[in-house]
Amino acid sequence: MSESETRSTATEVSNPSFRARLKAETARKVIETVYALVEECRIHLGEDGIHIMAADPALVASVTLDVDSAAFNTYSANGGLIGVNLERLSDVLGVAERDQLVTFTLDDETRKLHVAVGELEYRMALIDPDSIRSPPDPSNFDFEYSGTVVVRTEEVDRFIRASDMVADHLAIGMTEGEKPFYVEAEGDTDDVSLALSDDDLIELTPGSARSLFSLDYLSAINRPIPRDSAVRLSLGNELPIELQYEIASGHGSVEYVLSPRIASS
Amino acid sequence: MSESETRSTATEVSNPSFRARLKAETARKVIETVYALVEECRIHLGEDGIHIMAADPALVASVTLDVDSAAFNTYSANGGLIGVNLERLSDVLGVAERDQLVTFTLDDETRKLHVAVGELEYRMALIDPDSIRSPPDPSNFDFEYSGTVVVRTEEVDRFIRASDMVADHLAIGMTEGEKPFYVEAEGDTDDVSLALSDDDLIELTPGSARSLFSLDYLSAINRPIPRDSAVRLSLGNELPIELQYEIASGHGSVEYVLSPRIASS
Amino acid sequence: MSESETRSTATEVSNPSFRARLKAETARKVIETVYALVEECRIHLGEDGIHIMAADPALVASVTLDVDSAAFNTYSANGGLIGVNLERLSDVLGVAERDQLVTFTLDDETRKLHVAVGELEYRMALIDPDSIRSPPDPSNFDFEYSGTVVVRTEEVDRFIRASDMVADHLAIGMTEGEKPFYVEAEGDTDDVSLALSDDDLIELTPGSARSLFSLDYLSAINRPIPRDSAVRLSLGNELPIELQYEIASGHGSVEYVLSPRIASS
Repeated sequence: MSESETRSTATEVSNPSFRARLKAETARKVIETVYALVEECRIHLGEDGIHIMAADPALVASVTLDVDSAAFNTYSANGGLIGVNLERLSDVLGVAERDQLVTFTLDDETRKLHVAVGELEYRMALIDPDSIRSPPDPSNFDFEYSGTVVVRTEEVDRFIRASDMVADHLAIGMTEGEKPFYVEAEGDTDDVSLALSDDDLIELTPGSARSLFSLDYLSAINRPIPRDSAVRLSLGNELPIELQYEIASGHGSVEYVLSPRIASS
Repeated sequence: MSESETRSTATEVSNPSFRARLKAETARKVIETVYALVEECRIHLGEDGIHIMAADPALVASVTLDVDSAAFNTYSANGGLIGVNLERLSDVLGVAERDQLVTFTLDDETRKLHVAVGELEYRMALIDPDSIRSPPDPSNFDFEYSGTVVVRTEEVDRFIRASDMVADHLAIGMTEGEKPFYVEAEGDTDDVSLALSDDDLIELTPGSARSLFSLDYLSAINRPIPRDSAVRLSLGNELPIELQYEIASGHGSVEYVLSPRIASS
Repeated sequence: MSESETRSTATEVSNPSFRARLKAETARKVIETVYALVEECRIHLGEDGIHIMAADPALVASVTLDVDSAAFNTYSANGGLIGVNLERLSDVLGVAERDQLVTFTLDDETRKLHVAVGELEYRMALIDPDSIRSPPDPSNFDFEYSGTVVVRTEEVDRFIRASDMVADHLAIGMTEGEKPFYVEAEGDTDDVSLALSDDDLIELTPGSARSLFSLDYLSAINRPIPRDSAVRLSLGNELPIELQYEIASGHGSVEYVLSPRIASS
């Protein structure tokens, strides 16, 4: 009983190797973005911010996420690496209000991550980073894209949702014609297409490109993309697509890379 | 590949026999209203507007819906007839915002209906109208109603929902007494009733009437009725009930006719 | 048929032994509070207000609820006792708008409770109070609590939801130290704790206490507690916990008593 009594005061970790405080809403967005592809991930706790890289088990898609220390209310870290279960972390963050601050503290001794929401403290067992599949080498991702476009995230949401009704894959391409960006999904009876002219695009680096992608993956990737913002799509011929956008009011960035499907016809 | 590149610019249909543009919200209400009874329907594309008539497979209920060309931002048609899958059309319209304009264009050559939402274009295969069951002859619907009332749609919603808790059928009637309109549902243990006086009615043509109706049908019919408006109920003795109301800001009208159930007791 | 016509005018009960009128929202809160523990209950219709006492079938938790006649728009009763099915009553109240007035009238002859929402009347068969399990004797609840705290309901909600993620039981306690109130849940891998200092508490009667409770029960009890208010927790050593709060703008009170679990370790 006396042990319990001791435990009952909120645990104070002295000189933690990682302590960070940020809005629950931002923390949730980070978790949700990575959880779209994997259930567990390694988080690198860099001196200037956090860095996550992960690839789905089939190695079809990867995500790279950086959040600068400026996105945090307070931030201190000395370069460690932790492994976390994203579903559990997501549940825990669910008890906080949108604007409430959440404090993460790493207890180096017990290897638990303390997540404090108000006076509530959740102590989560970490996962050995070595037991989590290594993310792919970023140098693998140096593709020679033919062109890029920046589009409003509403357009991305709309073409993915509409295509998903008729087909299980989607062609995304660029032409040098009047409508430089296009999307096409062909189903058994119905088709969906989108063709954007220069005026509909926020930015354009013209090129000629066409690749086919899985709608299951695109739908998973699309879900956490914030509405009312912009996403940069980099494209090539039978090459992966790269989707890049900002989070945390510009203090964070996300980059998804999705491999093409081999054309079915 | 060159074929695909051609396809990739948004399809332009020249001189279509039908082209119409209207708010997504209005289009959705039209589809929802007919989908309450059938999964597929014929749409008559009249010069002055669209006309739909359909009856459920058991021929217990029918719906007649008219939307005048004035409800559309642009409208042109030359009297054709198309067959559509309402569930698919409803899914497609789901990607549009409430106030967004949707353009429907009939491609007479491919017999596909092009549905454009912003720069997105969905090409839906039509159904051969001959393969869709003929709607009943409207002259069958010339019943000699004993009386009519106009009530607020909230009252209709409330009595249908409440009755559905206790029973599977509902008596709707009129008397020449102090409360000219009434509804009664008798369950095994609990009863529900509603009796409206002249003051509670928007309009009244008095009469004496009473018929029993299926709550499954009434609930399906009730769902798409817009709130905050008025519905005209025409009633007789052991006769069908007719429910009429306006949609599309008065530029469209809906008429459901539901056959009575034979009294169970 | 003439019988039906007679029934069709809204039933008037003359000199009912109980008639009460109140906001749908308040009525729903009362039902929901008791329904957290039982499906049927006895309601005592006192001259000054209603009184409900009920215990769950396992006799682990009980609820005592009083609503003063001042919470009602009109109230008259002469001390009767009725038995009601809470699920059915909850469904019926579901058809009313939040602010709409609901009138309850007891038909002593038919032993039905008439629930009127606008012009709609629902007549619900009552349950014989003798067929409903007797609530426990309140004198059983005279525990010698060691201390009490009053906390914001958001804190209660948060610690119950967070603990529910890691464990199936929860220790709630008080110490005489700096953080006089604490909660602890220990799961297989993760722990949750909350420790509140004097400043975080709305009121404090200090003491030393610790008991273990089932999270299934606490979650059920927590659900109907109104947000943005205060709850008084009375605690002892291996004793039941008492949760008290106000409803109906202070004209009603709720008291849950939950028995402790025997410590599992």
